[in-house]
Amino acid sequence: MAIEGRNERLDRQIRLGMVGGGNDAFIGGVHRVAARLDDKFVLVAGALSSTPEKAQQSGAALGLAPDRIYDDFKQMAMREARLKNGIEAVSIVTPNHVHLLAAREFLKRGIHVICDKPLTSTLPDAKKLVKVAEASEALFILSHNYTGYPMIRQARAMIAKGDLGKLRIVQVEYPQDWLTTEQDFKQAEWRTDPARAGAGGSTGDIGTHAFNLVNFVTGLELDSLAADLQAFVEGRRVDDNAHVMLRFKGGARGMLWCSQVAPGNENALRLRIYGEKGGLEWTQEDPNYLWHSPLEEPKRLITRQGAGAGSAAERMSRIPPGHPEGYLEGFANIYGEAAAAILAAREGKKPSAEVIYPTVHDGLKGVQFIDACVRSSARNAAWVRLG
Amino acid sequence: MAIEGRNERLDRQIRLGMVGGGNDAFIGGVHRVAARLDDKFVLVAGALSSTPEKAQQSGAALGLAPDRIYDDFKQMAMREARLKNGIEAVSIVTPNHVHLLAAREFLKRGIHVICDKPLTSTLPDAKKLVKVAEASEALFILSHNYTGYPMIRQARAMIAKGDLGKLRIVQVEYPQDWLTTEQDFKQAEWRTDPARAGAGGSTGDIGTHAFNLVNFVTGLELDSLAADLQAFVEGRRVDDNAHVMLRFKGGARGMLWCSQVAPGNENALRLRIYGEKGGLEWTQEDPNYLWHSPLEEPKRLITRQGAGAGSAAERMSRIPPGHPEGYLEGFANIYGEAAAAILAAREGKKPSAEVIYPTVHDGLKGVQFIDACVRSSARNAAWVRLG
Amino acid sequence: MAIEGRNERLDRQIRLGMVGGGNDAFIGGVHRVAARLDDKFVLVAGALSSTPEKAQQSGAALGLAPDRIYDDFKQMAMREARLKNGIEAVSIVTPNHVHLLAAREFLKRGIHVICDKPLTSTLPDAKKLVKVAEASEALFILSHNYTGYPMIRQARAMIAKGDLGKLRIVQVEYPQDWLTTEQDFKQAEWRTDPARAGAGGSTGDIGTHAFNLVNFVTGLELDSLAADLQAFVEGRRVDDNAHVMLRFKGGARGMLWCSQVAPGNENALRLRIYGEKGGLEWTQEDPNYLWHSPLEEPKRLITRQGAGAGSAAERMSRIPPGHPEGYLEGFANIYGEAAAAILAAREGKKPSAEVIYPTVHDGLKGVQFIDACVRSSARNAAWVRLG
Amino acid sequence: MAIEGRNERLDRQIRLGMVGGGNDAFIGGVHRVAARLDDKFVLVAGALSSTPEKAQQSGAALGLAPDRIYDDFKQMAMREARLKNGIEAVSIVTPNHVHLLAAREFLKRGIHVICDKPLTSTLPDAKKLVKVAEASEALFILSHNYTGYPMIRQARAMIAKGDLGKLRIVQVEYPQDWLTTEQDFKQAEWRTDPARAGAGGSTGDIGTHAFNLVNFVTGLELDSLAADLQAFVEGRRVDDNAHVMLRFKGGARGMLWCSQVAPGNENALRLRIYGEKGGLEWTQEDPNYLWHSPLEEPKRLITRQGAGAGSAAERMSRIPPGHPEGYLEGFANIYGEAAAAILAAREGKKPSAEVIYPTVHDGLKGVQFIDACVRSSARNAAWVRLG
Repeated sequence: MAIEGRNERLDRQIRLGMVGGGNDAFIGGVHRVAARLDDKFVLVAGALSSTPEKAQQSGAALGLAPDRIYDDFKQMAMREARLKNGIEAVSIVTPNHVHLLAAREFLKRGIHVICDKPLTSTLPDAKKLVKVAEASEALFILSHNYTGYPMIRQARAMIAKGDLGKLRIVQVEYPQDWLTTEQDFKQAEWRTDPARAGAGGSTGDIGTHAFNLVNFVTGLELDSLAADLQAFVEGRRVDDNAHVMLRFKGGARGMLWCSQVAPGNENALRLRIYGEKGGLEWTQEDPNYLWHSPLEEPKRLITRQGAGAGSAAERMSRIPPGHPEGYLEGFANIYGEAAAAILAAREGKKPSAEVIYPTVHDGLKGVQFIDACVRSSARNAAWVRLG
Repeated sequence: MAIEGRNERLDRQIRLGMVGGGNDAFIGGVHRVAARLDDKFVLVAGALSSTPEKAQQSGAALGLAPDRIYDDFKQMAMREARLKNGIEAVSIVTPNHVHLLAAREFLKRGIHVICDKPLTSTLPDAKKLVKVAEASEALFILSHNYTGYPMIRQARAMIAKGDLGKLRIVQVEYPQDWLTTEQDFKQAEWRTDPARAGAGGSTGDIGTHAFNLVNFVTGLELDSLAADLQAFVEGRRVDDNAHVMLRFKGGARGMLWCSQVAPGNENALRLRIYGEKGGLEWTQEDPNYLWHSPLEEPKRLITRQGAGAGSAAERMSRIPPGHPEGYLEGFANIYGEAAAAILAAREGKKPSAEVIYPTVHDGLKGVQFIDACVRSSARNAAWVRLG
Repeated sequence: MAIEGRNERLDRQIRLGMVGGGNDAFIGGVHRVAARLDDKFVLVAGALSSTPEKAQQSGAALGLAPDRIYDDFKQMAMREARLKNGIEAVSIVTPNHVHLLAAREFLKRGIHVICDKPLTSTLPDAKKLVKVAEASEALFILSHNYTGYPMIRQARAMIAKGDLGKLRIVQVEYPQDWLTTEQDFKQAEWRTDPARAGAGGSTGDIGTHAFNLVNFVTGLELDSLAADLQAFVEGRRVDDNAHVMLRFKGGARGMLWCSQVAPGNENALRLRIYGEKGGLEWTQEDPNYLWHSPLEEPKRLITRQGAGAGSAAERMSRIPPGHPEGYLEGFANIYGEAAAAILAAREGKKPSAEVIYPTVHDGLKGVQFIDACVRSSARNAAWVRLG
Repeated sequence: MAIEGRNERLDRQIRLGMVGGGNDAFIGGVHRVAARLDDKFVLVAGALSSTPEKAQQSGAALGLAPDRIYDDFKQMAMREARLKNGIEAVSIVTPNHVHLLAAREFLKRGIHVICDKPLTSTLPDAKKLVKVAEASEALFILSHNYTGYPMIRQARAMIAKGDLGKLRIVQVEYPQDWLTTEQDFKQAEWRTDPARAGAGGSTGDIGTHAFNLVNFVTGLELDSLAADLQAFVEGRRVDDNAHVMLRFKGGARGMLWCSQVAPGNENALRLRIYGEKGGLEWTQEDPNYLWHSPLEEPKRLITRQGAGAGSAAERMSRIPPGHPEGYLEGFANIYGEAAAAILAAREGKKPSAEVIYPTVHDGLKGVQFIDACVRSSARNAAWVRLG
C-alpha cells in the first residue's frame, strides 16, 4: 500500500540524467535501481564514462536514445539545459575527484544534483562546491544512503523525542574485509588512489558514512576528534583502518572505527547510542530491526512497521514487517526524498518538514571529517577540530 | 555489476499488463516493483480492479495510457492481443478465485501469464488451469516468490550436488501473527473467505509457500501427509493454524507448521533440511544467509555472494555481500526468470537450463496440498495422498 | 548473594549416596557437580558400577571412605539405612532399566531418591515405581533438569499469571546430531539398546525432556498424540527421530519434534508457546534469555535477573544478568529444590509452595509418552491417549 | 567424563582459606563456588569480614569450624601457617586496597594466594606486591576469570598457531549498565571510591579484564595508549566510561571501550581480533562459541567441544557442546589451573606447560593500565606507556 500511495502522490516522473556509472561500475547501477524502484524517476540521458566508446556502449545498454548519450558531462549539461524535455536532475556517480567539476556544470544551469559521497576528494573542492550549490537555485542531494533506512529514521525520531534522555556515548563502527589483501580490480583501484579518492582511504569511503550517520541520528555536533590511521597493506597509499575518538559539544563522547581489512566483516556498519535514559542499537546487515533498551526495562526489538515503530519509519517503508527490505530500498528512499523535494521545487515550494536528505553541508562535514582524521593522525592523534 | 550485466542481456523491455492490484491492494504493488526493479518489464496496460471506477483511478495513478486502462480483464485480453504493441505478458494478482478465469483469457491468446499463488481457490479449477496452460504456447509462471531468494537457490544447488547426502528430515515452518485476533481490513477479509481464498486459510495463504519451498529446495516428492487444522479465532471459517506431518517417497520425513495466530512471528518462514552428511538452515527474515553444517565439521555461515556461495546464488544477486537484499529483490528474481524465459520464447527457444521458475504444475501441487490438508484434517489427521 | 543466602538457610549438608555414575559415565558426574555446586549435599557413599572393580576404583577416585564404596546398590541401601550417619538421599544415575530396582531398595528404607530420567525403561515398571514411591515416606525427585533453568521458571510463572491469555499452540523441539551415524561408545550403546533404554530411542532420551518441559511450563494436560517414529540409521533398534502432533485438553494444539540425527544441532531444545495475548520463546542453548511477545507490542528480551524477570527466576539464579549460567547451574537447581524438600522433610514439614521439582508422577507421564509414541507409530500415527 | 577425569588426577583436596567474602559480598561467593565446582578445594578457614561480628556469622553460615573463623587476616595467616593441616592456599576477595596487605601475610608464610583483580588499588602497591610474590616460594594466581573460558583458550591457541597470520587489529569492549544512575548499594559503593577501588572506576573494575584478555589471547605487548576517561554521573569520583586507543609493539592497533553507563549492556565483554589471514570474534554473554573467519572462506562457528575445537578448549570443558557452560565454570577453570599448579608445587614441581593462569605480573600490567589511562586522560589523551 505504501508503494501505491507513493505513486499516487506523483503527477509524473522526474527526468534524470547520469554522469559516470558505465558498464563496469558498481555504484552507478545502484543509483539507477534506487531511482527506478518507486517509479518516480526516468533515466533519459547519460555521460556514463570518460571513455567515449564505453559511454556509448553503456548508454545503449541502458536503452537511452542515441542523441542523449554524451561523451562528456559538460556537453550533456549544456545541451540538456536547452532541451524542452531536458533532464531536471542528474546523478553524479563518478570517482570523487570529478564530483565538483561535474556538479558545477549542472547546478549553474539549474539542474538538480544527486551526488555520490564523499562530496569531493579535497577540502578546498568541498568548500567550492558548497558555494556553487548555495549560489544555485537547484537542489543538491548527497546520497548518504544509510540515512534512508527506516529504522535509522526511527532512531533519529526517538532521540529527537528524548527517549534516550541526554546523550552520553556514541559507538559507531564500519568494518569491511574486502581490502584485506592487495586488490587490483576497478573498485579497489581508484578508491586507494589519493588523486582520485582523496587523502582518506577507509575514512573517505566508509568512515564518512559512519560519521554522517552519527550526525544524522543523534543531532550532536562534533567538538573535536583524535584519529590514529593505518595502512596495513604494504604499499597502500591511503588508510585502510582508522581508530577515532570523538568529543561532541555538550559533553557526549564516542568512538568511530572503520576498517577495510577486518576479515569476516562484509559491510558491518553498526551504530550504538547511549543516553541517560536508555540505549539504541542498529546494524546495517540486519537493517529492519532496532534494539531499544529503556533504562531498567527489558530490551525491546522494534521492527520496521511493527508495533513500536512510528511514522518516521513508516514513511520509508514499502512492505509489512517480516518482509525484509534491504540496501537498495534504503538507497531508493534517498531518491524518494529527492523526488519529493524536486516535485515541490517544480512548484516553487519547499517539501514538507518530514522530507529529509543529506545536503551539501553534510557533504562538507564529511570531507572535513576526512581532513581532520588525516591531520590528527599526522600529529600523532592530537585533538583537532573540523575546519 | 550484476545489475548492469542483466540489462545488457536484454534488447529491450517486455510489455506487461496487470489484472488486479488496484489502489488498496498489497500484492499488486509488490508485483509492480518486482517487474520494475531490473528494468526488464514495462507496465503498459491494466484491468486493476473489478470496480470500474477504481480500475480507472488506479490505472491513472500508475500513469497508464487511458486507452489501456480496462474495466475488465477479458476486454483487456481481447484488445491487447490485437494491438501491434500489445502486452506480451500479464500479471494476475487478484483474489484466488479469479485466477483461472483471468489466466484463461490471456493464455488462449498466447499472452504469457505471471500468476500469484495459490494457483486457484479450488482443486478442480487448478486442474482446469493446468490443461489450459498445457494447451497454450504461452508461458505460465507462478509467483512463489520465496524460490527467488539467492540463498534458496544456493540450498537447492547444494542438495542437488549431494552436499547433504541422502535426505532424511525436512522441518519447515511459516508462522505469522497478523490474524491472532479478528481482523476486518481488506487483506484479512478475502483471505478468510472460503469462497474467494479457497478451503484453506493459513494452509492456502502461507502453507503453500512452505510446501513449495520444500519441493523446490529438496526435490523430494511427497508420499502422503497427515494434517491437523485449527481455526482458533472464533467464527473464522478457514484454518488459521496447521500442523502437518510429511512422508516423502524414498523415506524422508518432515513436519510443516503454518500459523497466522502466533504472536511475535511476523513472517517467519524457516526451512531446515537434514541428510546423512549434513544440514542446512535458512530463514526468510534474514534471507542473505544460509547455515551449512557438514557432519563433524564446524557450522559455516554462507553469505550471498560471499565465500562459499556458488553460481546459483550469484545469478540471483545484484549487490555485494553485507549489503542486504530482501523480499522485493527475491520477488524480482521471479520476474527476472520470467523475463529470461519470455525473451527466449520470443525467438522460439527455451531459456538456458539455469533459468527456473515455479510452473502451473507446482501450482497444482500447492492446491493439492491444501486439499489434502483439509481432507486429512476432516478424517482426524489420517494419512492422505495428493490428488 | 544468592549463593550466600542459600547457604545460610541450611543448617548443614545432606548426606548423599550414588548408584551408577562410575568412571566413564557422563550423567553421574553431572549429578555430582549439581549436588556440590551450592554446597547443600555431601557425597558419602556409592555403588558406582555394576562391575565391582570399577565400583571400587570410581569410589576411591571420588574420595569416598573405603567402607562406603559398595559393589551393589542393595547392599548399600541395607547398610546405609542402619548407619547412624547413613545417607539421607541417593542419586540413581544408572541406565534406565535399573531405576526401578534401585529406587525400590532405597525408598522402602526411607531414603530419598533423586533419579535420572526417563523414570524406567518400561511402562509396567513405571507404574510399579509410582506405587513404591507412593507407599514410601521418602521423597522421589526426577531430574528433569531443564525445569531448573531460571527462565523456564519465569515462563511458567508468566503463563500461570495469564500473560499469554488462553494458550493455543505449543511448539517444542529437541534436535541433536550425535547419533547421525552409527556410534559404539558407551553413551550411545546403551541408549540404543531397547533392553536397557526402553522402547523409545530419541523419544525416551530427549523426547521425554521436551514433553516434560511442555507440561511444566504450560500446565496443559495432553488429550492425545499422533506420532511418526523413524530409525534412520541402518540397524538401529530404536527411534532416532520422532514427529509428534499433540492435542491438549481445552483445545490447544502442538507439535513435538525430537531427533538425534539432525546435523548442526548439538542440544537444541527449544520451546515456543502462543496464546491469545502473546507468545514466549526459549532455547536451551542460550538459556539466560526469554523472548516475550505481547500482542501488538514490541518483542521484549527478558534476561535472568534483569529488568522484567520476576521472583520465580530470581530464586533459581546465583549471579547477575550478563554473567551466563548454564546447564550445570540449571541441573543444580533441581538439587536445590530437592534439598529444600529434604530439609523440610527432616522436620516433618512440606517445603514452601515455591519449591517445585519433577515427581514420580511426572516420570510416569514421560514413560507413558514414550509408550504412546511407540503405540501410535505402530498404528500408522493414529491418535492415542497416554495410559 | 571430563569432570571425572579431573577428580581422578587429584590425590585429595587442597585446603583453602578465604579473606573477605562475607555475607553480603558478591565475588566471595563466586570464588567459593569456583573452588568447589570440581571438588579440588575444601574451604576450611576464613577471615571473611573486617567486622568481627560479620566475620563470625559468615563463617558459621559456611560451616567453618569455630576455631578457624578469624576476625583478622593476619591472625589467620599466622595461626594457619602453624597448624598441621593448615590452609595451603588462600583466596583474597576484599576490596582492592586490602589486596597487598593481605597477600603479603600469606605469601611470606608460604601459603599460595589466589587474589581477585585488579591486583591493588595503587601502582606502588602493585609493584610492592610483585616483589613480595617474587620473594615467596608460594604461588600467586590472579583471578582474571575470563581467561578461564574454554573458547578464550581456543582463541589463544589458534592465534599462537598462526591461524590469523600477523595480527593487525584488536577491538575489545566491555560495556555494562549497572551504574547508569547513581547507586548506593555495597557493590557500587566501594567500586566508586578511589580510596578503596583505586584511581580507576570502570577502567579498574572492567577495563583491566578487557586489557588482560587482549594480552592473554593475542600475546601482543602494548607500546602505548591514549585514553579519554569520563565520569558521566554527576558527583562520581572515578571514571564510568573510557575510550582508549591502543598501539602494540610490532604495529598492531586497537581500541578498548569500557563503560558502566551503557543501557542495555549487562556484561557485554567482547573481543574481536583481525590478522592478515583471518578474524576471530567472541562475546562473554554467549561464551560457548567462537567465530572464526578465515580469509576468503565462509565464517565458521566453533563450539566448545564441538568439531573444530581443539585440546586447549577441551581441557577447560566439563560437558558436551550444546550444554552451555557459563561464568561460574569459567571462573572454576582458574581454580582448576591453580589446583594443578598447587598440586605440582606440593611435590616441588612445575605444572605441565598447558596449565596457564594470570600471574602477579599480569596483575601489575593491569594496574599499570589503569594508571596509564588516568595519566593519559589527564594529559588530554596523550600517548603514554605503561610504567
